[in-house]
Amino acid sequence: MTRPPGDRAARVALGRLGEPGDPRLAALVRELGAEAVFAYLREERDLAGVATDVAARLRGLDPERDLQRAAGLGIRFICPGDAEWPVRLSDLDHAETLNRRGGAPLGLWLRGVGRLDELCERSVSVVGSRSATTYGTSVAGQVAADVAAAGVTVVSGAAFGIDQAAHRGALAGRGPTVAVLACGVDRAYPFAHRDLLTYIADTGVVVGELAPGCAPTRLRFLARNRMIAALSLGTVVVEAAVRSGALNTANWASLLNRTVMGVPGPVTSAPSAGVHELLRTKAASLVTRGSDVLELVSPPGRYLSPPLRAAEEQRDRLSEHDQRVLDAVPVASAASAASLARTAGIGERAVVEALQRLRSGGFVETSADLWRLDSRRHAEDQQ
Amino acid sequence: MTRPPGDRAARVALGRLGEPGDPRLAALVRELGAEAVFAYLREERDLAGVATDVAARLRGLDPERDLQRAAGLGIRFICPGDAEWPVRLSDLDHAETLNRRGGAPLGLWLRGVGRLDELCERSVSVVGSRSATTYGTSVAGQVAADVAAAGVTVVSGAAFGIDQAAHRGALAGRGPTVAVLACGVDRAYPFAHRDLLTYIADTGVVVGELAPGCAPTRLRFLARNRMIAALSLGTVVVEAAVRSGALNTANWASLLNRTVMGVPGPVTSAPSAGVHELLRTKAASLVTRGSDVLELVSPPGRYLSPPLRAAEEQRDRLSEHDQRVLDAVPVASAASAASLARTAGIGERAVVEALQRLRSGGFVETSADLWRLDSRRHAEDQQ
Repeated sequence: MTRPPGDRAARVALGRLGEPGDPRLAALVRELGAEAVFAYLREERDLAGVATDVAARLRGLDPERDLQRAAGLGIRFICPGDAEWPVRLSDLDHAETLNRRGGAPLGLWLRGVGRLDELCERSVSVVGSRSATTYGTSVAGQVAADVAAAGVTVVSGAAFGIDQAAHRGALAGRGPTVAVLACGVDRAYPFAHRDLLTYIADTGVVVGELAPGCAPTRLRFLARNRMIAALSLGTVVVEAAVRSGALNTANWASLLNRTVMGVPGPVTSAPSAGVHELLRTKAASLVTRGSDVLELVSPPGRYLSPPLRAAEEQRDRLSEHDQRVLDAVPVASAASAASLARTAGIGERAVVEALQRLRSGGFVETSADLWRLDSRRHAEDQQ
Repeated sequence: MTRPPGDRAARVALGRLGEPGDPRLAALVRELGAEAVFAYLREERDLAGVATDVAARLRGLDPERDLQRAAGLGIRFICPGDAEWPVRLSDLDHAETLNRRGGAPLGLWLRGVGRLDELCERSVSVVGSRSATTYGTSVAGQVAADVAAAGVTVVSGAAFGIDQAAHRGALAGRGPTVAVLACGVDRAYPFAHRDLLTYIADTGVVVGELAPGCAPTRLRFLARNRMIAALSLGTVVVEAAVRSGALNTANWASLLNRTVMGVPGPVTSAPSAGVHELLRTKAASLVTRGSDVLELVSPPGRYLSPPLRAAEEQRDRLSEHDQRVLDAVPVASAASAASLARTAGIGERAVVEALQRLRSGGFVETSADLWRLDSRRHAEDQQ
């Protein structure tokens, strides 16, 4: 490479140089601009100890060729200033670091028909354990399908388990979905999700910080998690063991002032233990269904999760007067109308009239002038 | 009854007159004293429309004989001023009403060897659905056993399902337990719990507002629930459908400024839906085990639930330097030492030395000068 690159190419080159989420590099680029940082580093002025053999490596790079090759694979590179750049990513520049990762990405590699900026306008990430249970994947899929059907983009990491269920749920809900990878977006990791990633690209977009061809490492997963959190209004954790990477994503969401949500499960299930810990420490809000999620990520008052209602009970349709008489009937024995009148605090004549109505409604039965609850009916669990 | 009764007998008589938890009667007794209210009512001066045929009924009562008969059944009556009276019950006089129930009880009928005031000093109620799942009863039993083993009294309502599991768990934890009934404490409701109630009385105490012989009604269950909440520092709801009576107890606990706690379950399980609603609306704190409960009902800083720890992983014992190299190894492919050195930002010689240590530790393997993660090891879910 002989002539100095423009901003875009400088970002591609700098991206090749360090690891994604290196907060020092991000800060330098933010302060000086990518072109200036590139020029300084190529002159071997190591501004912040970013690397030791930087100059030689930078001189060996050809970012313009990288961009052309990527275009040949149907992959584009976006960076700040592009219309498709999600402004929300700059929140990463103002957040603390986590696991020594941080800062907005220098740029993003994209594969797919979706426009990332539009997809991220209303988006929720759904993440969780790779070793999920069938309970976890079924709930994740349902939540994703429900929010996707409401036009909210589902962001996840395309991993086994919860991630896969979330993407599939979104696709099933005919909604948009975004996969954020810890490797080049031309690669399929895990390989078994090659077709899934193709489906995602067909309607949404596959995103990554790493140049095409790059392989995933543990460090890159940690950096990737900050992107999942940053690209969404909120993060839903479905199942996460105590040390799960999904909790790393939740921590990022929290650092970025996003809404952190958790779906509970049995307290006896290890894959739910990490979620329960988030909920117990109030680091996350409990959600049980898509509408709970929509309520939490919508502007206040804009979306209210419909209240859970038990099926209306027949007794709800009784007058308050008759309910009061019914409430006075012993649950397991019989009583005289006089006794019921005392218990209900209502005159005996009115009680007898009420009891007759209640009998024809099938609420009480009578024999030998004593009244009892209809044996076919249960006050089940309303005591 | 000819001579005017003392305070205790007046309370017994007034208790026979109205329904438990009648806030008007409680307020009158609080303001005027039981003897004065008794005297007024017997003179047919109906102070607050408490009843219409009061005077006649009061004249027909013999509270002294009630007390003697109860004593013959091993049942005692306690009221404010008695050493055994739990001072905490007066909180009910300052709380709002719920379902038109409220106010401190006029007195309590007790059966059992335990001293109620002492049992209530450190006490937690564990309540929930009568139609509980095996998950719910098993968790309720475990939580009750754990708090009981720590010397905290378990209060519940002796109903089927969660209540039963809570009492049994406490007995299994060799801890004290208190059953609060919606009927006379000489009765067994449900009848199937006759032996359970006897066990409870043998070590703890069975409590009720209603005179011996009285039958349970729905109204009395609602009044009883306020007692369960008032007698405890906090209420744990284990499983509760959307209309469960356990939610009524939780509401009482909340009105009384007690700690309200909920054990989550699968979001697909109807008996957990009411608990999730409490947790979602922040009306309750999530707990998963006895130690969480102990933390919440202990004075701040006195008891800390031990943190959940995943088993320490071997990689935790690596130096930070070696962990950094390990984090740079691709998760699904192989890389040269030079490439790993760039990714880790560490010199190649130091990387090779680290890789050799990691190989003997079984973390990585090598062939043809390329390094990969040891195939027998999984980075499972820590990405």
